[in-house]
Amino acid sequence: MKAVCLLSGGMDSTTLAYLARERGYKILALHFNYRQRTEEKERSCARTIARLLNAEEYLEVDLTYLSLFGKSSLTDHAIPVEPYDPEREGIPNTYVPFRNANLLAIATSYAESRDADAIFIGVQAQDYSGYPDCRPAFIEAFQRAIDTGTRSGGRIRLVTPFVNLSKRDILSLGLSLHVPYEHTWSCYQAEDVACGVCGACHFRQAAFFALGIKDPLPYRSEE
Amino acid sequence: MKAVCLLSGGMDSTTLAYLARERGYKILALHFNYRQRTEEKERSCARTIARLLNAEEYLEVDLTYLSLFGKSSLTDHAIPVEPYDPEREGIPNTYVPFRNANLLAIATSYAESRDADAIFIGVQAQDYSGYPDCRPAFIEAFQRAIDTGTRSGGRIRLVTPFVNLSKRDILSLGLSLHVPYEHTWSCYQAEDVACGVCGACHFRQAAFFALGIKDPLPYRSEE
Repeated sequence: MKAVCLLSGGMDSTTLAYLARERGYKILALHFNYRQRTEEKERSCARTIARLLNAEEYLEVDLTYLSLFGKSSLTDHAIPVEPYDPEREGIPNTYVPFRNANLLAIATSYAESRDADAIFIGVQAQDYSGYPDCRPAFIEAFQRAIDTGTRSGGRIRLVTPFVNLSKRDILSLGLSLHVPYEHTWSCYQAEDVACGVCGACHFRQAAFFALGIKDPLPYRSEE
Repeated sequence: MKAVCLLSGGMDSTTLAYLARERGYKILALHFNYRQRTEEKERSCARTIARLLNAEEYLEVDLTYLSLFGKSSLTDHAIPVEPYDPEREGIPNTYVPFRNANLLAIATSYAESRDADAIFIGVQAQDYSGYPDCRPAFIEAFQRAIDTGTRSGGRIRLVTPFVNLSKRDILSLGLSLHVPYEHTWSCYQAEDVACGVCGACHFRQAAFFALGIKDPLPYRSEE
């Protein structure tokens, strides 16, 4: 069995790749560069994880076209990343329009060309309910697009075991799989030490705190 | 009203862009380069058409990652393009795995970032029934992915008026819209004069022949 694993270098995708290996899949790791602010750090993490996992292939795909459209603080470096605010409603400005569909389309092309059985993507609806392309309804619709639009018909399964898990549940699972979290990166803002105030840092830190464990990454607030 | 129009530079997409303009849309033309054999010629046609149409924007997106996966004679130049054979069953080797999902994902990101109302794509199930990602079931599934995965909910409509038309119907419509077919390109094989034997040439020539009109493009067989 072979699985394409979307590997950003963050906590969720790394935990998921370890889970895929645990389930007996050979790993085809797929990393995306779309000029997100912290790409250099993320790529370095993804490469390390792919090596530690003994991935059968590791592929980096350039999606810099996503930054052409603007409108997201993740890719348009003129827009500042919002600090996390639990009172805030609506979709955070880190949202990249329809990003996950772009990632899944590529992953499916890759899976189809390699006769892979599954695509693992670490979307999570619970903590990031603001992103429409992380919701179960979107994942179901995309599975149907795969079933109808590929040569292999119903072969390729989208596997999203984290869609209804919290960050804390994911971390707890990852610790049982011995995921090396010191080689993962979550912060949206910086590449040296994590900022500690963006949404990604907030949820990561809260998960470690909830389990009573120290995050192995350095944070700016600790300096 | 604004529409993203996928504009390859071929007959179908060009006719469709003229139809979108006729229906009152401002045109956001989107052209893809995925190292298909005849990209240089197609790009030159797409640029000319976008200019003639007074497109509001014309954007070229590099999808060379599709050629990374191999397996298609359109992008892997070591695999020869098959001549058209009406007896042949199955999917032609010009098929690029899940290509249209990749194109539609980008078109949707673009449409969402520009608050566009529609995406026009010239897929056609009738003459190319071998390509799974041209079928109505795939288009419907992708529409559902757009509805569930974008910020704007049900705003962006996939418009595919050619899905059940023959090439001849499309040409007939295009002639009534005064589409300048001398600035379009269909052949899969060559960039100077069309080969006249690949599937794309076959269907194009048959459409002109059926309407009793001379194709303005030069063909190798005429030399």
